[in-house]
Amino acid sequence: MSYKEGMLREGALDNKTIIVTGGGTGLGKSMATYFLKLGANVVICSRRLEVLQDAAKELANSTGGKILAVACDVRKTEEIENVISKSIEHFGQVDILVNNSAGNFISPTERLSYKAVDTVVDIVLRGTYYFTLALGKYWIDNDIKGTVLNISTTYAWTGSGWVVPSAMAKAGVLAMTKSLAFEWANHGIRLNAIAPGPFPTKGAWDRLFPEELSKKFSFENRIPLQRVGDHQELANLAAYLISDFSSYITGEVITLDGGEVLSGGQFNFLKEVSDEQWDAIENQIKNANNIPKKSE
Amino acid sequence: MSYKEGMLREGALDNKTIIVTGGGTGLGKSMATYFLKLGANVVICSRRLEVLQDAAKELANSTGGKILAVACDVRKTEEIENVISKSIEHFGQVDILVNNSAGNFISPTERLSYKAVDTVVDIVLRGTYYFTLALGKYWIDNDIKGTVLNISTTYAWTGSGWVVPSAMAKAGVLAMTKSLAFEWANHGIRLNAIAPGPFPTKGAWDRLFPEELSKKFSFENRIPLQRVGDHQELANLAAYLISDFSSYITGEVITLDGGEVLSGGQFNFLKEVSDEQWDAIENQIKNANNIPKKSE
Amino acid sequence: MSYKEGMLREGALDNKTIIVTGGGTGLGKSMATYFLKLGANVVICSRRLEVLQDAAKELANSTGGKILAVACDVRKTEEIENVISKSIEHFGQVDILVNNSAGNFISPTERLSYKAVDTVVDIVLRGTYYFTLALGKYWIDNDIKGTVLNISTTYAWTGSGWVVPSAMAKAGVLAMTKSLAFEWANHGIRLNAIAPGPFPTKGAWDRLFPEELSKKFSFENRIPLQRVGDHQELANLAAYLISDFSSYITGEVITLDGGEVLSGGQFNFLKEVSDEQWDAIENQIKNANNIPKKSE
Amino acid sequence: MSYKEGMLREGALDNKTIIVTGGGTGLGKSMATYFLKLGANVVICSRRLEVLQDAAKELANSTGGKILAVACDVRKTEEIENVISKSIEHFGQVDILVNNSAGNFISPTERLSYKAVDTVVDIVLRGTYYFTLALGKYWIDNDIKGTVLNISTTYAWTGSGWVVPSAMAKAGVLAMTKSLAFEWANHGIRLNAIAPGPFPTKGAWDRLFPEELSKKFSFENRIPLQRVGDHQELANLAAYLISDFSSYITGEVITLDGGEVLSGGQFNFLKEVSDEQWDAIENQIKNANNIPKKSE
Repeated sequence: MSYKEGMLREGALDNKTIIVTGGGTGLGKSMATYFLKLGANVVICSRRLEVLQDAAKELANSTGGKILAVACDVRKTEEIENVISKSIEHFGQVDILVNNSAGNFISPTERLSYKAVDTVVDIVLRGTYYFTLALGKYWIDNDIKGTVLNISTTYAWTGSGWVVPSAMAKAGVLAMTKSLAFEWANHGIRLNAIAPGPFPTKGAWDRLFPEELSKKFSFENRIPLQRVGDHQELANLAAYLISDFSSYITGEVITLDGGEVLSGGQFNFLKEVSDEQWDAIENQIKNANNIPKKSE
Repeated sequence: MSYKEGMLREGALDNKTIIVTGGGTGLGKSMATYFLKLGANVVICSRRLEVLQDAAKELANSTGGKILAVACDVRKTEEIENVISKSIEHFGQVDILVNNSAGNFISPTERLSYKAVDTVVDIVLRGTYYFTLALGKYWIDNDIKGTVLNISTTYAWTGSGWVVPSAMAKAGVLAMTKSLAFEWANHGIRLNAIAPGPFPTKGAWDRLFPEELSKKFSFENRIPLQRVGDHQELANLAAYLISDFSSYITGEVITLDGGEVLSGGQFNFLKEVSDEQWDAIENQIKNANNIPKKSE
Repeated sequence: MSYKEGMLREGALDNKTIIVTGGGTGLGKSMATYFLKLGANVVICSRRLEVLQDAAKELANSTGGKILAVACDVRKTEEIENVISKSIEHFGQVDILVNNSAGNFISPTERLSYKAVDTVVDIVLRGTYYFTLALGKYWIDNDIKGTVLNISTTYAWTGSGWVVPSAMAKAGVLAMTKSLAFEWANHGIRLNAIAPGPFPTKGAWDRLFPEELSKKFSFENRIPLQRVGDHQELANLAAYLISDFSSYITGEVITLDGGEVLSGGQFNFLKEVSDEQWDAIENQIKNANNIPKKSE
Repeated sequence: MSYKEGMLREGALDNKTIIVTGGGTGLGKSMATYFLKLGANVVICSRRLEVLQDAAKELANSTGGKILAVACDVRKTEEIENVISKSIEHFGQVDILVNNSAGNFISPTERLSYKAVDTVVDIVLRGTYYFTLALGKYWIDNDIKGTVLNISTTYAWTGSGWVVPSAMAKAGVLAMTKSLAFEWANHGIRLNAIAPGPFPTKGAWDRLFPEELSKKFSFENRIPLQRVGDHQELANLAAYLISDFSSYITGEVITLDGGEVLSGGQFNFLKEVSDEQWDAIENQIKNANNIPKKSE
């Protein structure tokens, strides 16, 4: 089978109502599409109502699923609470939250203003904990075994230069995932995360990577599995993690990155050695099999 | 849907040939069963041929799938090579390896003999790298994009007392998973791992936990999600990780443990505080919202 | 030698000027004391000027060192910039920053208001990145090879329930540590962190742990090494990490917790098994040395 | 002060007897030298008695310290037990073990024989657990609060291609460190580890890196802090970790690598972007401060 197909059994998300923040474009939209195909009710929200409504119409048509669009700036708790109450009004209850909204700058950190850093941290971290806190209170009060899926990054735990505001915020989200997974487990609430590698999106990707950088660096060559990800692959994993099939997984972050994060291994730079060079080296190794070389 | 059902689309493993070490009993058998249902050819191997052959017959009957049983002590490279050649002879090629064989002692480490430690390390670590090395050479020589799934544990990276031989060996397997995932990615070979929490198995579980310990400790109470795992849950995740649907995941270990590994969080002992105690404490916190307490 | 003594050679911090946020009380004060003894110039800052000035006088008397106190709310960038310019005015330049200010609530997360979470995140994460960004710009502009030490926690990466705002914020600080350690390495700037376990401080500790909790839980019993930390132990490690002796360490977080974070290992609950119970179990294991029990 | 000087107070290791495996050459010899200077009794052991005895003479002369050389292949338990009994005979007791012996191959894994992999695993993992088990039993029986320091690597947890046997073995050692740190804490025994980056050693380094590789890759350029490590830096950290000054640290691994392990951060490849290119990009970012770009 191809990884470009949906993997779960039909109806895997029947009767689930899912809020996807930033669900009108990019990966959020791809996830929303697949959730609808699997039978879920989907609520998408983001700041730009027009974009949202167009996406909602498109997805309703393409999937035949039930979808609601509500404008929301995730930095404003009253707008978050409005999304939740509209969702309940429309679909009866909310079962699942996918925190997918994000913002990012690629820049040397010393060139950023305090305010630029704040902006990213507020969208990514504050927006995520506001939404999770609002739904968590609702779930606990109403005894609903809700599930949260956070879209994280590998640099949430490795760190990464040149995206420091995002790294701090995503790390905070990851800590929230693990912390609440334990604390809220006795309420039957699960929280998990996905750390995607490069999943290019028309528009967003271009804005993040100015032409100067795109020309200089090619993701395809840097990824061990030598390709970028397909949106359906992320949608497959996301659907699994919010479905009941993963109901024994909580507090976990799953990396889906073609092996990109592995590149930090100390001797992985040796991938540039050619077979012919290894041939030349091999004899030395064979001759020394019984007396291995001390490394330190 | 219930987590006790298979999650993948029918035919998800069609035309794949999978070797499952330790596949005649316990979780290995449960995985083999589900792989057969999804259309795979399965080879099970372990030291006890009789047990294997009985399991093979049972699974052939219950699933209608194609299964082969070959005796193998994973500490002996010639027996491993025999499993591989028999599998190729029977099914044409081998696509997937599930390193599931394991051994373990629960004991204070200072009570173990050198030999007891060696025995576990040899089965778990040596057996795994022998089998992986043998298949890796075959895959690279024949240009087959193979996949390895290793059954690991959470203590492979957290460490754990009283199972030290297994902890060392499983940690070694995990390092192999990440290392070869990078090194062999350019051959299209993927390696991943699962770290399961408690998935009790009649027989094996009882032998591991002498009655003295079972009486004293209950897994159900210690797991945040308050139950042990169901074998189908592990089989679902395993099938996903060896299928093409996960073809952008490599070098990853996925924890499936009901949140057990999270318990090390510094303040998670507070789960024992009752709601009434929190009520008493809450006022202090409310009064102090603007002047948070310093923690250090 | 006792761990209660200072460990570094005399003069190890000669000619270094160090800003310690939250340096007027608790661990911050203990670190400041030792830095002064080692020859450094120290600037302490926090919101309460009176407390600061008393501490400065006390430390000047007890150590004979040069110390400056400047009021500062780390959530306000103009106050941070004032601390830096006052420090430069007074001591010529700033070499080292110790981000030690913190706030915390112990509470079920669903009982916290949005604002309560914000307060902790703003002090711990925002305050830390504001201060680090301000000094980083100054160091890069002036070609000073500065060093940052962040006081973190083990739950920055394990997560922990009941301290979720702090967990998110400290995780963000840790990501900043690793990210900027790489990005700013070419400027000769280093960033590291310490994750301390329980180091009780009169006052702060009591406020964090309401009497209801202190009575119920004893840290001494929960720590593998069976004692709480001594402030000099943390001061020793901190002095090492800001000194030139650690100049090949960057992006690292060092845990100093008596082994507390290790408790999450899957079988570590077995520490409650008595020697007599192990004696009873041991025979079974000895008899089975050649046929280890399968764990899965 | 320079990082090339010893950092601890005089006499910091007075009255301690320390076994350093592989202590006759390279980093082991550098550590032994510093331990002697700090007042310790030192036992060095390795397979080549002649090299050991020469080193012992040299160190006795240069430091005036008490040193004993005993031949030992760490894969043979009777030789290990001989080292221990000779050390007790000579110095009264053994307090500290530094597991520093190592072996390594740099090679594509599929080119290695089973036996080549075994050789490295046996020296690094088996040798370490044999020695640790032997001393642990002695310490527990004699109520000595011993300490173990293991020389690890960063690829013990990140993994790394082309050094897979060493990666597996070092990962096992790291798991042992964390596991026994918890299990043996109630006996007052501590275990810690250091993960060094490049610390070149005449001889060993050249054997590990055939000329073909040395020419192609320069460590200095790959390390964020742009230099290799100095042996005294490692000796300083090692002395701290085996001294009583670190007596609240256990189960910890400290990385000393000039930031090398950080390079896996997702956007760290951007270090190759020049200031001029950032200037060109910066305007776009400034213009967009209030509407950050979506990353996904």
